Amino acid sequence: MEAVVMAAVQSLPISSLKCGAPKSATASARKKTLSLSSCSVRQAPDFLSDLSVKVAGGNGRKKMQVMAAIAEDRRIEQESMLSEKPPTLLRDGEDADDKNGLRARFEQMVFRIQNEVCAAVEAVDGGKFREDAWSRPGGGGGVSRVLQGGNVWEKAGVNVSVVYGSMPPEAYRAATGSTTKKPGRIPFFASGVSSVMHPKNPFAPTVHFNYRYFETDAPEGAEGAPRAWWFGGGTDLTPSYIFEEDVKHFHQVQKNACDKFDPNFYPKFKKWCDDYFLIKHRDERRGLGGIFFDDLNDRDPDELLAFATACADSVIPGYIPLVEKRKDMPFTQENKDWQQLRRGRYVEFNLVYDRGTTFGLQTGGRIESILMSLPLTARWEYDHQPEEGTEERKLLDACRNPPDWV
Amino acid sequence: MEAVVMAAVQSLPISSLKCGAPKSATASARKKTLSLSSCSVRQAPDFLSDLSVKVAGGNGRKKMQVMAAIAEDRRIEQESMLSEKPPTLLRDGEDADDKNGLRARFEQMVFRIQNEVCAAVEAVDGGKFREDAWSRPGGGGGVSRVLQGGNVWEKAGVNVSVVYGSMPPEAYRAATGSTTKKPGRIPFFASGVSSVMHPKNPFAPTVHFNYRYFETDAPEGAEGAPRAWWFGGGTDLTPSYIFEEDVKHFHQVQKNACDKFDPNFYPKFKKWCDDYFLIKHRDERRGLGGIFFDDLNDRDPDELLAFATACADSVIPGYIPLVEKRKDMPFTQENKDWQQLRRGRYVEFNLVYDRGTTFGLQTGGRIESILMSLPLTARWEYDHQPEEGTEERKLLDACRNPPDWV
Repeated sequence: MEAVVMAAVQSLPISSLKCGAPKSATASARKKTLSLSSCSVRQAPDFLSDLSVKVAGGNGRKKMQVMAAIAEDRRIEQESMLSEKPPTLLRDGEDADDKNGLRARFEQMVFRIQNEVCAAVEAVDGGKFREDAWSRPGGGGGVSRVLQGGNVWEKAGVNVSVVYGSMPPEAYRAATGSTTKKPGRIPFFASGVSSVMHPKNPFAPTVHFNYRYFETDAPEGAEGAPRAWWFGGGTDLTPSYIFEEDVKHFHQVQKNACDKFDPNFYPKFKKWCDDYFLIKHRDERRGLGGIFFDDLNDRDPDELLAFATACADSVIPGYIPLVEKRKDMPFTQENKDWQQLRRGRYVEFNLVYDRGTTFGLQTGGRIESILMSLPLTARWEYDHQPEEGTEERKLLDACRNPPDWV
Repeated sequence: MEAVVMAAVQSLPISSLKCGAPKSATASARKKTLSLSSCSVRQAPDFLSDLSVKVAGGNGRKKMQVMAAIAEDRRIEQESMLSEKPPTLLRDGEDADDKNGLRARFEQMVFRIQNEVCAAVEAVDGGKFREDAWSRPGGGGGVSRVLQGGNVWEKAGVNVSVVYGSMPPEAYRAATGSTTKKPGRIPFFASGVSSVMHPKNPFAPTVHFNYRYFETDAPEGAEGAPRAWWFGGGTDLTPSYIFEEDVKHFHQVQKNACDKFDPNFYPKFKKWCDDYFLIKHRDERRGLGGIFFDDLNDRDPDELLAFATACADSVIPGYIPLVEKRKDMPFTQENKDWQQLRRGRYVEFNLVYDRGTTFGLQTGGRIESILMSLPLTARWEYDHQPEEGTEERKLLDACRNPPDWV
């Protein structure tokens, strides 16, 4: 079923990756799809990166084609800012009412994680997160929380978003070989939490995490939903200096979360993480990795929801203690400059390679939420080469040849 | 003739945009092309951006396809660092010997500009440029000069490069409809100067300029060269604060250079510049523009060489006086923070949109020379909105709606 959707998306003329009012729908589907009429792909930078992953497969060229097609289709549709965070970003009706549905349970999980992570950060920092909530005319929306210029963190952001979109029927036909004359568009749903936190102290590491859930409905006019679904996400650590005990602790906590579900998860997702966060033009990773996975749907969805939840729940115990240990360490200007250079690398990865970011920029998502991941400050020196034997060089070597930490 | 090459490049499976030893060549061509055997597209980030322009035409999707194809073809072929700047980067033999050829005259022009601009900057700054020179096994190479942490400029770089490459015969056949069974590859030549200079004082503006010349030879086995050629380039100003007299002076100097050749040049190239340096995801330009042109070959090449030279010669009189006037102005931390935010925008443009940069990163050019354009330091604040009526807002408004300055 996954394969069908993957193939469907692969043949997308994604220029039509936006919603249109359905031409035909069953009575039950009609209610749902009518509210899609004004939503578009630009709502979903972070989750639609999933789509581009599918489209890409092993073929970078096809991905670029799709990205280009999407970019051509960009529409400037403003989000509406809300005065406060709504209890749910799910569409009124079926989605919001089905409290036991995966959509609702996933959304509640990411909202809980957002609350808990922000509370943990505020407890250490003493500062407060600012909150911005918005909705889209067609359903869905987001809640961004940002703490900037704190006592411990230079910039920390935790975003939750929910997206409704739809795929064009041509994609469905091409994928299934269906000869049905007029299958409707295929609605999809995506939800996730995404976060980056950059501390001030050069010995305290940056962390990023993102967990997301994706679903497609039955084509309009057909019975039964969803047709396909998958989970994706990961948590990775980006220190400027290596404290081996810290990196081991971080990886061990991720491994523990994985091991509860499958002993193969950690080794597989650790390597995936090292492969994904590669700054190709420098042949070095932005940091020391963690776990990363996508397209996960090969077991019971409840089990995978539990797995994604366990991973998201590992952020606080895996990361916060490291910052507590390092936040007050004395440092030199040299240490700070090196941190700033590594922040520059972070910017390079996010603006050049990160799928969520580049996709979001091309499709016109909420810029401030997408670029929340960029550090408050960064630095680029010409031809900076840390000397052999220094701590800076040790970090760089580990970014070039990722060790096994646990 | 230009159209032929443009079409040729449009149909490139650019995966083969690298050199191979020719299968057949006339005696005179053989000498030249044999030395191409080890050169590849990755030598030419800045100038091959020309190619991607051609390929793109008005079609962003095609450009992306080509970029993807090139990215797939990336090869890691190290440049060789030289102990000192060579008198020429042209290939031994025909190119270097033909002192009156356009290749040699253009190269001498960009070397002269590099010398003069660096001397002018050193005279104001008091610091000294560092020089790095390199060559490629197949011919060509570069000379980078960087002044970092100066008294007036935070970071200033001026690069000269010369590139030899070749296009595959399929491209030539597709473009010309030629039924010749085995036309050879089409060698090309590119040379240019490229520079970005970021001052420390937030009231002193950043400048960028780049002038380049591109030629294709006759297909191997055919007589006569070159088959096509063109000039491209531009100079643009990126201040953090508007001093109207400064911006007018800068634009007037560019206009004067243009007007000597064609009264239509300045208005056309000013608009081209405003269109090119757009940060699309913010719908704002990185700065206040200047001139930008490409594909220029519609008059005598000597006249266009004179025009490119006049433009390059306008950098010093158009820019240096502005820095001299502003370099010692007192400023607040708020001014500095705003400058740093605008530097962040510069990074966004260069890493996400700039053709030379993105192409260079994807094809594996000399990273330190490509990223020389990034500022020493930059800043990203969440949702920063300058208030109505402030100087910061005035700059932002001009970046959003470019005024006519002269």
